[in-house]
Amino acid sequence: MNDTVHQLRCIGCSRVVAQAEVRSDFRCADCGELFEVEYPGWSSAPASQAGGLTGANGHNGSSQAAVLPAVSHSGPRAWMPNASALRWLWKERRHSAQSIDQSGVWRFRELLPILEKPNDAVTLREGNTPLYGMPRCAEAAGMERLMAKHQGMNPTGSFKDTGMTAALSVARERGFDWVACASTGNTSAAMAAYAARAGMRSLVLIPEGKIGWGKLSQAMDYGALTCQLRTDFDGCVQVLAEIVQRYPIYLLNSVNPYRLEGQKTPALEIAEELEWNVPDHLIVPGGNLANCSALGKGFQEMKHLGLTTAVPRISVIQAVGANPLYSMIASGARELTPVHADTRATAIRIGNPASWRKALRVIEQTGGYCEQVTEAEIAIAKAEIGREGIGCEPASAVTLAGLKKLVADGRVMPAENVVLLLTGHALKDSEYTIDFHRGSLLGAEEGRGFEASMAVMRSTMPVLDASADAVLRELEAGVRS
Amino acid sequence: MNDTVHQLRCIGCSRVVAQAEVRSDFRCADCGELFEVEYPGWSSAPASQAGGLTGANGHNGSSQAAVLPAVSHSGPRAWMPNASALRWLWKERRHSAQSIDQSGVWRFRELLPILEKPNDAVTLREGNTPLYGMPRCAEAAGMERLMAKHQGMNPTGSFKDTGMTAALSVARERGFDWVACASTGNTSAAMAAYAARAGMRSLVLIPEGKIGWGKLSQAMDYGALTCQLRTDFDGCVQVLAEIVQRYPIYLLNSVNPYRLEGQKTPALEIAEELEWNVPDHLIVPGGNLANCSALGKGFQEMKHLGLTTAVPRISVIQAVGANPLYSMIASGARELTPVHADTRATAIRIGNPASWRKALRVIEQTGGYCEQVTEAEIAIAKAEIGREGIGCEPASAVTLAGLKKLVADGRVMPAENVVLLLTGHALKDSEYTIDFHRGSLLGAEEGRGFEASMAVMRSTMPVLDASADAVLRELEAGVRS
Repeated sequence: MNDTVHQLRCIGCSRVVAQAEVRSDFRCADCGELFEVEYPGWSSAPASQAGGLTGANGHNGSSQAAVLPAVSHSGPRAWMPNASALRWLWKERRHSAQSIDQSGVWRFRELLPILEKPNDAVTLREGNTPLYGMPRCAEAAGMERLMAKHQGMNPTGSFKDTGMTAALSVARERGFDWVACASTGNTSAAMAAYAARAGMRSLVLIPEGKIGWGKLSQAMDYGALTCQLRTDFDGCVQVLAEIVQRYPIYLLNSVNPYRLEGQKTPALEIAEELEWNVPDHLIVPGGNLANCSALGKGFQEMKHLGLTTAVPRISVIQAVGANPLYSMIASGARELTPVHADTRATAIRIGNPASWRKALRVIEQTGGYCEQVTEAEIAIAKAEIGREGIGCEPASAVTLAGLKKLVADGRVMPAENVVLLLTGHALKDSEYTIDFHRGSLLGAEEGRGFEASMAVMRSTMPVLDASADAVLRELEAGVRS
Repeated sequence: MNDTVHQLRCIGCSRVVAQAEVRSDFRCADCGELFEVEYPGWSSAPASQAGGLTGANGHNGSSQAAVLPAVSHSGPRAWMPNASALRWLWKERRHSAQSIDQSGVWRFRELLPILEKPNDAVTLREGNTPLYGMPRCAEAAGMERLMAKHQGMNPTGSFKDTGMTAALSVARERGFDWVACASTGNTSAAMAAYAARAGMRSLVLIPEGKIGWGKLSQAMDYGALTCQLRTDFDGCVQVLAEIVQRYPIYLLNSVNPYRLEGQKTPALEIAEELEWNVPDHLIVPGGNLANCSALGKGFQEMKHLGLTTAVPRISVIQAVGANPLYSMIASGARELTPVHADTRATAIRIGNPASWRKALRVIEQTGGYCEQVTEAEIAIAKAEIGREGIGCEPASAVTLAGLKKLVADGRVMPAENVVLLLTGHALKDSEYTIDFHRGSLLGAEEGRGFEASMAVMRSTMPVLDASADAVLRELEAGVRS
């Protein structure tokens, strides 16, 4: 680990600790809040210095270190990176046959110098995900155009891979054999995959009986030890906190600040794809809220370094049934009150999000919004995204549903450049898709007022005689519809 | 469409037709066999001309046309492409923000000039899939090293995407509004996705009641019209053949020769990744056998053009329960006898593969083998691949299971460079994974002799009291095991 380059700062009391001193539960010993990674050489310099182009410092001759300075503890931060050189370097790595260059996370490793030996990073070639144009969804939302950054195209099918390659590589560099999380979904899949890739072991804690078998199949495939505990989810988190203090096992829950360093890289990819412009607005699903926090950090660091000249608004959309951040902001409170979470968008079914302070800060600093959407609105939005030829898991679809609301009341203008952040692949939750198209997803009360909108999005599956005539009649009915 | 650049040749009677003359069922009017795409300007020139470096011909000034000649009908084929220029061009496109350059299929469009306007290709940024090192699987197979090209990392989760971007783009350029296939699996998912992307409609025919809902969820998501017919799979194919003759609907079953043009591009990616060397041996799953055919064509064309100097052996592995090619070769027959197909590896559960002649030719020309593996061997191989942190659907795992047999009897030497072709993502069949780890996948008879091998690969899921002690006991047992 690289103490000379990065340190951890508590987001509650601003206490700074060297990485080796952080508690194994990644909570501040003073105030109990979370840490974030900062790079004294550049990340905490005043924003007014952004855009400096003082050039490469040439230290140590390695191609990856030539454009960002080592930290200087002895005086003012005189060095700023050469933004053009960074852009060039990251682009050239697209030609490389090295696995870390082929990773959409480690290709940008100058902005996440958290490893002593980045060449040893544990990677599955995550990142480099597509930024799709979404013409039909744009129309549905009343926008002139719309883009979607699809993090579900990562190796295990969710955005968690970008964070996991970062944090698990830290775990391996620190010599751990075991990693752990409490999760029934995308986090456990990503953790187990990267642990297997590294030749490490992984432990998943879940509440007894609360098993989504589909969601856990990946963790099993990758060889995780999954323990069902006779308690609820919070109980699992508590047991895990004790375990990591008693046994050398590295915690990979979302409190781990290194995960966010990987999860900020989609911001870099978006900016690079737009030739170092940024969109006006980025819309992300709101579950544990680490993703919003990470992307905000990515955009803010890029601007600070002079790679871009602006930061997009970053908005968070929650499901009505799992809306603690929305409720807090709507009520004017400054502390989050956990809720009992209930939504079919399982990836954001989180009532007590660990990263709410970080996310709130990003929303406020960027001028974003927090909105909530119903189950019916989510279902329709997911079907609309599907009709673009792009599948996503239900949680991803809150972004389009939320955008519609922001456009409808004028918070987003039709001419703005908006990017939706899709977090998971459609195959992560096939049953949801099937239930929607068979008409069995929502109860009558949940669907009230949306019956016609849902009916028109449903793909039918008629049973016919085995004749071309029968099929052609259906087809022609389809043409007319 | 580009009649001056490509034509179709029947693999049975060698009849050549211009693309516009081909029957809508893509069968030869004379002998009923399949067609393959050839490029008179270069693909059918004698192999002895390969490696010529006569340089760019400069016609029309577009970057994509500058390094391959237009066809000359008037004389001997005097032009061969400049291999170095092609390699450079394909590499430079990695820097491009254009969607067709970001596609791992259309980045190589000089080798599949099937569109008048390649810029209009329908793409989801397919291809550019990872080539993973597989150290633990290498050990399991008795190899010094092993690689896997993971086509399951394509947008819809299977290798079908590379073929579908090619053939569906042809359909759109020819003015079709509808496309169709008979499929319950990966083909329908890919077709529906690309049709949706293009704003076209898609028709899927399946036998009534034979529904794998998970496999069909994607086609529904992408808005396909799925008709269940009161017949079997062959009956669906017959109805479809009549429909495409009566209605302007474009057939996208595996008989469509343009699909293979897209499916050959992973061969180019493998060669490029290995710095224009080729592996000694490529091992692919054998279902409808189009994939083997396409990859063989890709490697042979590269060698012919002087991009590479060799073609790997290409071997096909079938499941014992769906082994018509294996049976034919083993019995010394020269005509394939269809079998009743029965295997849990659903993506290769095909008893009457359309492309067997093409595949046989590739196996014979490259010196490859055809092998068969049991359900237990497939299950163990899939778990071993999973333990690398890389999920795949069961059909993909026949490659590793088959490699073990080829190594065991000396047909593959431990020092050879072997690439396994993984065809589908683990999330395509979560139930298989779950059943394996719960011990309910195979009957006692199927698993006989493999009980211990399977037990050691199974991920357990114990139910425990909510205490750190209980979890740590399990964990320490895991460490000892």
